[in-house]
Amino acid sequence: MNQNKNVNRRIVLASRPEGKPVPDNFHLETGDIPRPEDGQLLLRTVYLSLDPYMRGRMNDTPSYAPPVELNAVMGGGTVSRVEASRHPDFRPGDWVLNYGGWQDYALGNAEEVSKLPEDALQHPSWALGILGMPGFTAYMGLMDIGRPKTGETLVVAAASGAVGAVVGQVAKLKGCRVVGVAGGQEKCRYVTQTLGFDACIDHRAPDFAHQLAKACPQGIDIYFENVGGTVFDAVLPLLNTSARIPLCGLIANYNIKDLSEGLDRLPLLTGILLRKRIRMQGFIITQDYGHRRKEFLDTMGPWVAAGKVKTREDLVEELDNAPQAFIGLLEGKNFGKLVIRVGGDTL
Amino acid sequence: MNQNKNVNRRIVLASRPEGKPVPDNFHLETGDIPRPEDGQLLLRTVYLSLDPYMRGRMNDTPSYAPPVELNAVMGGGTVSRVEASRHPDFRPGDWVLNYGGWQDYALGNAEEVSKLPEDALQHPSWALGILGMPGFTAYMGLMDIGRPKTGETLVVAAASGAVGAVVGQVAKLKGCRVVGVAGGQEKCRYVTQTLGFDACIDHRAPDFAHQLAKACPQGIDIYFENVGGTVFDAVLPLLNTSARIPLCGLIANYNIKDLSEGLDRLPLLTGILLRKRIRMQGFIITQDYGHRRKEFLDTMGPWVAAGKVKTREDLVEELDNAPQAFIGLLEGKNFGKLVIRVGGDTL
Repeated sequence: MNQNKNVNRRIVLASRPEGKPVPDNFHLETGDIPRPEDGQLLLRTVYLSLDPYMRGRMNDTPSYAPPVELNAVMGGGTVSRVEASRHPDFRPGDWVLNYGGWQDYALGNAEEVSKLPEDALQHPSWALGILGMPGFTAYMGLMDIGRPKTGETLVVAAASGAVGAVVGQVAKLKGCRVVGVAGGQEKCRYVTQTLGFDACIDHRAPDFAHQLAKACPQGIDIYFENVGGTVFDAVLPLLNTSARIPLCGLIANYNIKDLSEGLDRLPLLTGILLRKRIRMQGFIITQDYGHRRKEFLDTMGPWVAAGKVKTREDLVEELDNAPQAFIGLLEGKNFGKLVIRVGGDTL
Repeated sequence: MNQNKNVNRRIVLASRPEGKPVPDNFHLETGDIPRPEDGQLLLRTVYLSLDPYMRGRMNDTPSYAPPVELNAVMGGGTVSRVEASRHPDFRPGDWVLNYGGWQDYALGNAEEVSKLPEDALQHPSWALGILGMPGFTAYMGLMDIGRPKTGETLVVAAASGAVGAVVGQVAKLKGCRVVGVAGGQEKCRYVTQTLGFDACIDHRAPDFAHQLAKACPQGIDIYFENVGGTVFDAVLPLLNTSARIPLCGLIANYNIKDLSEGLDRLPLLTGILLRKRIRMQGFIITQDYGHRRKEFLDTMGPWVAAGKVKTREDLVEELDNAPQAFIGLLEGKNFGKLVIRVGGDTL
């Protein structure tokens, strides 16, 4: 079944995952198309963004966003078109950015929805990626916490992904030596040849930590943390005095059920932060930097238009493929910003 | 033997400690009094500062300061008097702040020595405490990384100590609820009754974590970290969103030989930093904030003079008591800023 005018397909959280999500955690159901009240809009999803943070919301423990309720629709940023408007500022056909979730139709309150600017309509889905939450996360974390200086070395993992690709390209513009980490030779080639990173290391290589050290002969001044796990372990001994670690995600840890047995490395980490005078700081883009969105768009928009920052989308067709695509995202199977094409530009 | 004009007593690092330092790690030896060359001063130690960071320097692994060599004199900040000067800016009798180490006499280069200002001469030893490195550490870590706001809750351990006492009192001046942690009821009484903290919890109490939680009903916004260990463990679950953790020391961890077996809590810590958007930052006062010393003195000097910030010294007589006093410092046996009185104001 494709998107149509008569029914709202929606993917709900059927059960909470134990460790890695599986298809049975999701359920596709259909229902009536909701009707907007005064001040509301009926919005039809064209593009749905899939992002690692959604894994945290599938647990019932508080993550940085509240959990999704069981049998509630999975949340997610969307680029949508107005189908019906009961607010004077919006007309049918308008393109908007919304948090519509994994479904065909959603209601939006006019205050919580933003119209895409005219110059965004060539690539509406970029409002979910390079010019949206992931690009904004990359830019602010790098600039405000990472504070790159010419000649410094930056490392970022998931380097071909929505955040990592932007972090590295902006750091290059700021004069850094940039080393990416990605899964597989194809992604690594893209990262160096297309995105212009100085090096990219395949984290699947058995001598990954050794290769990373070789690629960072002057140590690491900025580690933009979005994965955790073995990459962080390899980065730790390479950190320089006064290094900065902006921390926006820990995708490798999201599926961990329990802490692993072994040595307790908490004192190791705090000891390194102390001895090397390191700043490590978690942030969530909307809460911490929402007020600086204009600054981001005014900078990134021209960079993208001029080709100074490149972007790649991994566009998956059809809403019912969202669960499998999301499971793959957590395993690094996507190549570029993962977006679901839920419906056509017009119905 | 007391300090005299004929011999230089010095305490050297005889062997590196395995875990806790023991008296045999130190050796008191005597030697000739050194002779200054052109541009140098001969300095006689009056007060020697003993501080937890010295433990790190006794290891041969790099800490935030380079290790003390075996059979070299233990380093340490001193308030000294000029005995002989071969530099035009200094005269015999001048009081200076120096890094003279655990010995009666040291040579100083004029550029590395600072004269005590006139108004410091009433309490020359305060240049090693409230108006020196520990006070400066407390002030800058709190103001620049902690960024206290009215109504927030701050926790600091070693609350009767050289750094903790200042952190808490300044945070009170900034309108925070301030909860100290100290060892024993006597110290806790001093912290609340004399220093004016809102509460002080004895970390030796079997229900310490529970008591700390009760004293922080609104959670913790700033944890000024100078101890690590069980205090940090109790603080972790109480941290609020957007909390800040200035990190200037980990005294509880300094004697750890090996990481303990158990669960690896490194991902636990990074997960909390991410979900709660916490800034954790190690710093070393001279390297990170040396250029802001004047700002500190201009603020703290008047506060101390007006009695708004109080200080307490634990003054131990005689250089040969330094090793035992230092061992006690690492066990929390001191009560206030630990200073060794090495010699008289005059010889």
